[in-house]
Amino acid sequence: MSISKFVAPEIIFGLGALSQVGESALRLGATRLFVISDPGVVANQWVEKAIARLKEAGLSFEVWFEVTSNPKDYEVVEGVKQYLAAGCDAILAVGGGSPIDVAKAVAILATNKGVIQDYEGVNKITRPLPPLLVVPTTAGSGSEVSQFAIIVDTRRKIKMTIISKSLVPDIAIIDPVVLQTKDARLTAATGLDALSHAIESFVSLAATPLTNVHALNAIRLIARYLRPSVACRTNLEAKAAMAMAALQAGLAFSNAILGATHAMAHQLDAQLDLHHGETNAILLPYVMEFNQLACVEKFAQIAEAMGEDPAGLSIWEAAEKAIRAVRKLAGDLDIPEKISVESLSEEYITRLTQNALKDACIITNPRDVTERDIHHLFTLVLKRGRAGD
Amino acid sequence: MSISKFVAPEIIFGLGALSQVGESALRLGATRLFVISDPGVVANQWVEKAIARLKEAGLSFEVWFEVTSNPKDYEVVEGVKQYLAAGCDAILAVGGGSPIDVAKAVAILATNKGVIQDYEGVNKITRPLPPLLVVPTTAGSGSEVSQFAIIVDTRRKIKMTIISKSLVPDIAIIDPVVLQTKDARLTAATGLDALSHAIESFVSLAATPLTNVHALNAIRLIARYLRPSVACRTNLEAKAAMAMAALQAGLAFSNAILGATHAMAHQLDAQLDLHHGETNAILLPYVMEFNQLACVEKFAQIAEAMGEDPAGLSIWEAAEKAIRAVRKLAGDLDIPEKISVESLSEEYITRLTQNALKDACIITNPRDVTERDIHHLFTLVLKRGRAGD
Repeated sequence: MSISKFVAPEIIFGLGALSQVGESALRLGATRLFVISDPGVVANQWVEKAIARLKEAGLSFEVWFEVTSNPKDYEVVEGVKQYLAAGCDAILAVGGGSPIDVAKAVAILATNKGVIQDYEGVNKITRPLPPLLVVPTTAGSGSEVSQFAIIVDTRRKIKMTIISKSLVPDIAIIDPVVLQTKDARLTAATGLDALSHAIESFVSLAATPLTNVHALNAIRLIARYLRPSVACRTNLEAKAAMAMAALQAGLAFSNAILGATHAMAHQLDAQLDLHHGETNAILLPYVMEFNQLACVEKFAQIAEAMGEDPAGLSIWEAAEKAIRAVRKLAGDLDIPEKISVESLSEEYITRLTQNALKDACIITNPRDVTERDIHHLFTLVLKRGRAGD
Repeated sequence: MSISKFVAPEIIFGLGALSQVGESALRLGATRLFVISDPGVVANQWVEKAIARLKEAGLSFEVWFEVTSNPKDYEVVEGVKQYLAAGCDAILAVGGGSPIDVAKAVAILATNKGVIQDYEGVNKITRPLPPLLVVPTTAGSGSEVSQFAIIVDTRRKIKMTIISKSLVPDIAIIDPVVLQTKDARLTAATGLDALSHAIESFVSLAATPLTNVHALNAIRLIARYLRPSVACRTNLEAKAAMAMAALQAGLAFSNAILGATHAMAHQLDAQLDLHHGETNAILLPYVMEFNQLACVEKFAQIAEAMGEDPAGLSIWEAAEKAIRAVRKLAGDLDIPEKISVESLSEEYITRLTQNALKDACIITNPRDVTERDIHHLFTLVLKRGRAGD
C-alpha cells in the first residue's frame, strides 16, 4: 500500500440545488463573478436561472459564453482577457465538461503567468486560483469534482491533460433537474463517458479503497439507470442516479487517474473533433479486452456491478461478462463499434499512437503498453472494428 | 430528495503517511504550529516522529499535551491561552478523537470570540479558523474528516455537539502504522465507535447516496477486520482496513449526522466519564431494536454488510440478523451488555433523558422518539440489560 491522496470539493446535491448558487458564491467571498457557459446551455435557461440567484444575493457578474466542445487553447486566451478586463474575483461555470474545463484554465491564467501549455501535466500550478463554483449540466465529465482540465492544443492537435489539486472546484452544485434538457444522444454519450471514468479508475494502478468504492457504485448506477435516463427526459429518478454516478466516477478518476482509453480518446477528440463521450464509449471495450490480462478479478467485480450473475462462472468467464456488458450497453444506446473516418494512413495512426503514449493517463493503465499495442488498438477502432467482424 | 451538502478534507492515506506532516503543514502556509496531543500518544513517540517532520520542513512549533479523554471545556480555555501566547498560526493534532476535538475547539476560539459554549449546535462559527492538520492515532472517532467536535460542558455535565463545515480539518494524514501501539481494549472500543457511526449515519434521516456508500463500506470492513485488528497488534492489513473504515464512517456521519445512540452516549460519557466507544457499543443494539420499526430494509442491508446471508429470509428476519450480528461482534470483543453503575435514581435517568432529547444527534434518528422512549432505553442499558435477561 503506497501513500495516496484524496481531494474533493464541497458538494451540494439534490433536486433544486441550483437555487444555492447565490449563497454559495457569497460563502466563497465572491463579489463579481465571471459566468462561463456555452450557447447550448444558455438556450436552456439554466444560466439565466443561475444569474437570477447571483442577483438575489446582490452579486455583480460578467457573462462569457464562447466555449465550444473539446475546448481550445485560444478560447482560454480570450476567456482570461475578458475575465481580467471585467475585474471579476470569482468564476461560475454552468455547463458540461467543456465550460467547466475552460473555467479551470481561465482560473489558472488569471493568477499564474504564461500560457496554458505551461501547465500541462501534473502539479505545475504554483499560485492560488480565484474561487471556482460549478454547476454541471451533463452527467458525465466529472469535471465538477475533479482535479483535471482537458484543453486542446490547436497547434499540436492534441488534448492537454492538466492535473492539480487546485483545479478541484471550491463548490460543486449538482441539480438533476438541469439534466432534463439534454437530448438522448448527449445523455448516452456523457453517461458512457462516466462509465469509462468509473471502469478506468477502478482498474487504475493508482486506485485506492476510497476511489474503488466510488467507482464501483458509479458502475452499478450507470448499469441500472443510463438506459432509462436516455429513454425518458423527465425520469428524474434516473437523472438523479446518473448525476450521482457521474459525480462518484469523477471522485474516483480525479484521485486514481485513468488509463489507455482516455489516453487514446484525447488524441482522437483533438484530431477529429469527436464527442469525447462517444470516443470513449467506442474505445472502452477494446481497451478492456487488452487490459483483461492484468486485472481479471477486478473485471469480475465490474461484471457483478453491471448486473451480471457470476454464479457458476470461473473468474475468467465472469471477467469476460464485464466486457460483454459494456458492449451491450453501448450497443443499446446506438454507439457504433468503430470510428468512421475516411482513408487513414499508417503515418497518421503512428502519430496518434506516439501522442497517446505521452498522455498523462497512460501511466496508470493496469497493463503495460507498448507502441505496438496502442497502434494495434487504434487500428482496430479506426479500421477494423471488432476482431473477426 | 432534498438538497444535501457533502464536505471532506484532503485525505492522505497509507503506510508511512506520517512522513507527510512537514510538507502538508508547509502547503497550508503554516510557519509555527501548535501541536496538540495527549500523554498516552506522546509516550508512543508518534508526536516525536511528527515533530521531526516539522523540523525537517523548517517549521517552528509549540507543544501542549494536556488533553484528557472526554475533553473538557476548561482544557479548551487553557489550550487557546497557550496557542495565543505561543504566537502560532496553525494547529497539528496527533491523537484520538479527544485531542482532535480539542484542536478544533481551540481553532474556533483562536479566531472567534466568546466561550466554547457559544458554538454548541449547528453552524454557529462565523470567522475562518487557522489551518488544521490532523493525524489520528485511533481508528474510530472519525474526527479527522468530520465537521463535528464534542466537548464536555463541566458545569452542565453534558457533551456539547458542535457542528460546522469549518471544523473539517484542512488535511487528514492517516497512517495505519500508528495504530499498532493501541491496546486490544482501546482498539475494540474505538472500532465499535466507528461501527456506531456507520450504522447510525446509514439509517439517519439525513443520509444521502453519497454518505450511504461510505457507511456501508465501513460496516463491511469493520465486520471483517475489527476482530483480527483487536487480536493482533501487528496485523497491518487489519489496521489499514480499520483506518479506512473509521475514515469512511467519519465521512458518512459528518455529512448525514447520527442518531439516538450518540445522543444518549454523549450524556453517559459526560456524567460517568466512560469511554465513548464502549458506551456506544453497549447502547447501539438497544437503539437498533427500537429503530427497527423505521428502517427494516436498511437493517437488512446492514446484515448483509455484516457478513450475514439473507438467502431464504424475510426482510424482517434479515433485519434482526443485523442486530444479532452487532451484539455478537461486541460480545466477542468483551463489551458488556449493560453499563454498571451503582444505585441510579429515577430523577437521574430523567435528567439524562431530557439532555439526550436536546442533543443535536437526536434530530436525525430514523424513528420518532418520545421522552418515554429514551427513558426506557436508558433504563434498559443502565439497569436491566437485555430485555428478558
